[in-house]
Amino acid sequence: MKYGIVAFPSKKLQDLANTYRKRYDPHFAQITPHMTLKDSFDASEEEIQSVIKQLDELARNVAPLQIHASRISSFYPTTNAIYFRVEPTEQLTTLHQALEEKISFGEAKHVFVPHITIAQKMSDSEHDDVYGQLRMAGVDEKDVIDRIHLLYQLEDGSWTTFETFRLTGAE
Amino acid sequence: MKYGIVAFPSKKLQDLANTYRKRYDPHFAQITPHMTLKDSFDASEEEIQSVIKQLDELARNVAPLQIHASRISSFYPTTNAIYFRVEPTEQLTTLHQALEEKISFGEAKHVFVPHITIAQKMSDSEHDDVYGQLRMAGVDEKDVIDRIHLLYQLEDGSWTTFETFRLTGAE
Repeated sequence: MKYGIVAFPSKKLQDLANTYRKRYDPHFAQITPHMTLKDSFDASEEEIQSVIKQLDELARNVAPLQIHASRISSFYPTTNAIYFRVEPTEQLTTLHQALEEKISFGEAKHVFVPHITIAQKMSDSEHDDVYGQLRMAGVDEKDVIDRIHLLYQLEDGSWTTFETFRLTGAE
Repeated sequence: MKYGIVAFPSKKLQDLANTYRKRYDPHFAQITPHMTLKDSFDASEEEIQSVIKQLDELARNVAPLQIHASRISSFYPTTNAIYFRVEPTEQLTTLHQALEEKISFGEAKHVFVPHITIAQKMSDSEHDDVYGQLRMAGVDEKDVIDRIHLLYQLEDGSWTTFETFRLTGAE
């Protein structure tokens, strides 16, 4: 089964992202707005039990994530995805590295750039148009995320939450 | 914020439900296939903390749910929703009653009929056509669900998981 690890921001920030996603993101229906912490990976039902143990332990030592969605950026020309840039912090980088080290399934597909995707799979010219508009609109939202989610993917591409892990570590 | 409590069946059963939902359920994109355990209710961020405590306690005393999706039925003429009928068991009824009693937000909108919706919001004639076809196809799947989910709804109608609760009670 294919799994992924994400953090969902507050309802307020998800609602804001969805105002763009419903128009510009064909993956809109597969998952609500999120920040990917570990790219999707394959694991068996037995293997995922060890992943859950690692996540349980990790979450007890990680404090709630302080995030700041500070501007709208694009991964162009790597991909045409446009996103809320989340300021990279030591906390986020440390969490991402811990996930990569402790959960030895799959491999990071990209350098870790914390982000919430709001548009993707557009043609180059559409991307340029939309990016121009969205960059002007901008974003400036701070948020605290106190849990992370382990998800699995259905055959049609949509994601169901398998388990939540509350981040209960000290600051 | 609007909350709901559901159980997601196995990936296999969700995939099966989605083969119908993608064609016949306009709510397809808002949530993956599920069995509603408590209808949606409004609660504040403070109130939901007490709900979480109740669910934590409840889940420790409820065994994993043994379910049997045994045939395809319809709520017609109440609504035009078509669903996998999940055989009502003492276990499911007891869990539903416990949720109604312990979580004093909202009210049950219908008598509790355990089900997984696969089609809805169709015209009467479309309903009759589709129901005729699906009833012939039928369903016969047994499943064990070892967790329940507390969800919240975004402004666009989609649902994000807030927290999972593992059912760890004895049989």
